[in-house]
Amino acid sequence: MKIAVFGTGDVGQAIATKLVSLGHEVRLGSRTATNEKAKAWVEKTGAKASTGTYADAAKFGEWVFNCTLGAGTIEALKMAGEGALDGKIVVDLSNPLDFTKGMPPSLFLSNTDSLGEAVQRTFPKAKVVKTLNTMWNGIMVNPRLLPDTHVNYLCGNDAGARGQVKELLKSFGWKDEELLDLGDITNARGTESILPLWVRVYGATKSGAFNFKIVAAKG
Amino acid sequence: MKIAVFGTGDVGQAIATKLVSLGHEVRLGSRTATNEKAKAWVEKTGAKASTGTYADAAKFGEWVFNCTLGAGTIEALKMAGEGALDGKIVVDLSNPLDFTKGMPPSLFLSNTDSLGEAVQRTFPKAKVVKTLNTMWNGIMVNPRLLPDTHVNYLCGNDAGARGQVKELLKSFGWKDEELLDLGDITNARGTESILPLWVRVYGATKSGAFNFKIVAAKG
Repeated sequence: MKIAVFGTGDVGQAIATKLVSLGHEVRLGSRTATNEKAKAWVEKTGAKASTGTYADAAKFGEWVFNCTLGAGTIEALKMAGEGALDGKIVVDLSNPLDFTKGMPPSLFLSNTDSLGEAVQRTFPKAKVVKTLNTMWNGIMVNPRLLPDTHVNYLCGNDAGARGQVKELLKSFGWKDEELLDLGDITNARGTESILPLWVRVYGATKSGAFNFKIVAAKG
Repeated sequence: MKIAVFGTGDVGQAIATKLVSLGHEVRLGSRTATNEKAKAWVEKTGAKASTGTYADAAKFGEWVFNCTLGAGTIEALKMAGEGALDGKIVVDLSNPLDFTKGMPPSLFLSNTDSLGEAVQRTFPKAKVVKTLNTMWNGIMVNPRLLPDTHVNYLCGNDAGARGQVKELLKSFGWKDEELLDLGDITNARGTESILPLWVRVYGATKSGAFNFKIVAAKG
């Protein structure tokens, strides 16, 4: 598949590299066509990797992975251009982290709204699926790094798109029983609200290489 | 120990019954001295159980467990009377759940504040320790109900009080490695923010008999 990855930071590069390793063609999108980090990534990643503006990448990709920082997500997606996301699956990994009010960060959208909903509202014809936003990027692309099963949530308004994203995640190494489908995109209010806890567990344990598992009583 | 438990609902009764079973004397507090639920609980629980107003219970207890509904927590604690909580450990299990804006509930305090902080602010001389607020009450008092280890967070400004609460929780069946001390009471912003996710996992799995485990990469 041809896939656009928005965002040249650690998350974008981890996702893009994983997708190339699975045989997909990936265009890493950023503000400018000459982004140094994107160019360096293409050089080390090989023939299936390319780079360009958000608009170039969106045009190229059948799907779009949004791995931009939350504070810039809506603006970055808008730079894809009018209609560029229409009908496409937009896998949204962003979090509405607000670093302007001290550490640990708070959220600039929360409780009765979420960034996942804001993305879907802004691009009503995109099929937004929120997932992978509740963990460190090393675990997103290598879930078997952890010595036990653990959970990754999906939500979005299009059930078919959620199912397709689930299949792609399985190719990353996620087990079917680890992928918890919560339903429509308003559930991003739940998954994004892990962040205020995540940053504090990270603070207490001094390691980001963890994720949560749901332990249920035996029926 | 003599312990006050505020709140006659499922959480208060579960905590109060557990404490009595461990040999503590418990006074269940509510708005009135003639609360029917409290009287029925005393009848079935025996000699170590008693009931009274919030003020009666606070006077009786060396510690106070706050198991009231979040929306009424500050008011209930105020009914204990001027200075009644001073110097005492107040174990706060409440959550700022707001059911007025539709289901699942949102939070009436969140992100840059928390109910744990509000309790501590309102009663600056109490030693507030927030814990057990992230799970169903059946698991609070019987953590071994689940077939794996799982996590319970503690936070509060008094490290000694956090340590004393940890010891009491171990008598409930919690293992030392399951009790994650996050530090001061501002960390309640993190643990209370699990609720928006908890209610959605409950919605998706149709069972409240679960908790989260932190799965970490092996060092």
